[in-house]
Amino acid sequence: MITNFQNKIKEEIEKFSAELSLPPAELYEPIRYMLSLGGKRIRPIFVMMACDLFSNKTEHAVHAALAVELFHNFTLVHDDIMDNAPLRRNKLTVYRKWNKSAAILSGDVMMVKAYQLIGRSKLSPDVLEAVLSVFNEMAVKVCEGQQWDLNYEQLHNISIPQYFKMIELKTAVLIAACMKMGALIGGAKEEDTENLYEFGKNTGIAFQLQDDLMDVYGEEEKFGKLKGGDIIANKKTFLLLKASAIATSNHYLKEELEQWMGASPHLTPALSKGEGEIQRERETKDAAEKVKAVMRIYDFVNVKKITEEEINSYHQKAVNALEKISAPEAKKQALIEFTSSLLKRET
Amino acid sequence: MITNFQNKIKEEIEKFSAELSLPPAELYEPIRYMLSLGGKRIRPIFVMMACDLFSNKTEHAVHAALAVELFHNFTLVHDDIMDNAPLRRNKLTVYRKWNKSAAILSGDVMMVKAYQLIGRSKLSPDVLEAVLSVFNEMAVKVCEGQQWDLNYEQLHNISIPQYFKMIELKTAVLIAACMKMGALIGGAKEEDTENLYEFGKNTGIAFQLQDDLMDVYGEEEKFGKLKGGDIIANKKTFLLLKASAIATSNHYLKEELEQWMGASPHLTPALSKGEGEIQRERETKDAAEKVKAVMRIYDFVNVKKITEEEINSYHQKAVNALEKISAPEAKKQALIEFTSSLLKRET
Repeated sequence: MITNFQNKIKEEIEKFSAELSLPPAELYEPIRYMLSLGGKRIRPIFVMMACDLFSNKTEHAVHAALAVELFHNFTLVHDDIMDNAPLRRNKLTVYRKWNKSAAILSGDVMMVKAYQLIGRSKLSPDVLEAVLSVFNEMAVKVCEGQQWDLNYEQLHNISIPQYFKMIELKTAVLIAACMKMGALIGGAKEEDTENLYEFGKNTGIAFQLQDDLMDVYGEEEKFGKLKGGDIIANKKTFLLLKASAIATSNHYLKEELEQWMGASPHLTPALSKGEGEIQRERETKDAAEKVKAVMRIYDFVNVKKITEEEINSYHQKAVNALEKISAPEAKKQALIEFTSSLLKRET
Repeated sequence: MITNFQNKIKEEIEKFSAELSLPPAELYEPIRYMLSLGGKRIRPIFVMMACDLFSNKTEHAVHAALAVELFHNFTLVHDDIMDNAPLRRNKLTVYRKWNKSAAILSGDVMMVKAYQLIGRSKLSPDVLEAVLSVFNEMAVKVCEGQQWDLNYEQLHNISIPQYFKMIELKTAVLIAACMKMGALIGGAKEEDTENLYEFGKNTGIAFQLQDDLMDVYGEEEKFGKLKGGDIIANKKTFLLLKASAIATSNHYLKEELEQWMGASPHLTPALSKGEGEIQRERETKDAAEKVKAVMRIYDFVNVKKITEEEINSYHQKAVNALEKISAPEAKKQALIEFTSSLLKRET
């Protein structure tokens, strides 16, 4: 079933992408480029699976599924500008490959195209209105989440509840909205729709915790990112915040963690171009040393296990919400297996 | 009647703005700031007037009117980043007052909020769908127009038809969409709706030509911009393209115009900080000389009169489209008077 959905989504994305062979190329090529970078298409598959729980007319959910994938890619394009990110899925980010203006504008068009896709779905007026309303609320929250994330980068003390609120807005409400939109299109009862939203929200939080964990403890090749990238960038992840919280009672540990996380890998600026090579080597060495040192602290406070327990707890909350829903057991089981496989993907 | 609409729009914008006293401030304050900068609110007034041609239930058009104003402000916030514009209505642009990330994100939220506002309108399903579809198509075209504008900045030879296509997309389709959305909400027949779209499109083109003209021949205080700003920035306006086209047959004139328009006001870079003051004085002098020289050429080829005739011709096309519409003569007349007053606002 999931393979069917994956194939359907792939096919629809290719069709949609082909429609965008339009001038001006600077506006439309970045959209096709982003869609060609692939990814697991988790979000559109969730829309389809949610719809499938309540109806076998999943073809009605295809456009909404495409819309969330497009929206997700819009946020990536704009976020990459804000985060100065050079790479995305091992390829240049849009603003690096083209420029910032093209990235801003093509992102804007992706958002509009997402709305256009929803408008294309053959939905009854009530369902269309409800789907749009869920989509709008989600979109506002995702922007709020990104702004909190940007704000927190500048702050020294972020509490764990603040972190959870931020990832809920930035990451989890999109997964939740996917489930809710699918449920609405499938004709679910209100109670089931709300429980599926809860399923999505808790699953989304578990996904983000898993991402935080994999950055440090994942297998590099599978994860496709530099190991410890979050540590190098001083990113406030669950692991860091939790380790800091535990370290509060241990003066020596706290000081060491703060020293490392305050330290930039760019410790010594290159004095001339000729020194660039040596400089880069030194930075790589400093960065590796930093990752190793912080990981020693993480291991000491057992943050891997704590994070895994947290992930399991959110996953369990999600499963509990799903179990309350009136839908065929086999389909609910397929949804649980899909999320479980995603959560265990690199351990 | 127009005063009523103006007051209603003002009141609704204030109400909407008050709703946005929300955290995170970096996300919502820029929206409130943009809405507080004022402006003539031409676009929402057009939505109201278009609806009023066909129905006295203009309260149904208020949310759509607000939505287009918000969308317009979203484009300003993002365009100002792309254009490196320091000021907007004599105040700092959002990305200068806050930063680029806040400008990108708050712009994104403004777009979503525009959709949310349309969703709030109490419209029948058919009308809502039609209004959303007009809004979506318009939004895509406005982004295309901005991308063409950015592309044309880098090109030496832009034809007058290319220029007209660009301003149609970037500026005129928004006015056209305002009229069409208002007409749809007012319950207009399809033919009337299409004619009103034509009215809006041609009016929008006339507005942009008028803007181009006022940059050079407007009264500085009234226009609120630096006189000849487009000339200083080498912007490809109708006046420049037309003057270039006429100058093609006059070798001397063509060379002089090209020399001036190729010349940057930053002719001699300041060698040290101490020279900044002298440098700025020199730049101001160079810029003023450039404006004077280009205006001499404009006067020589009579481009003011040609532009005025072009404006009149588009205004007349707009009026002709309006005349075909079945609506009370007095209301059509009010619409003509409103656009005429806007077109003559500074001459």
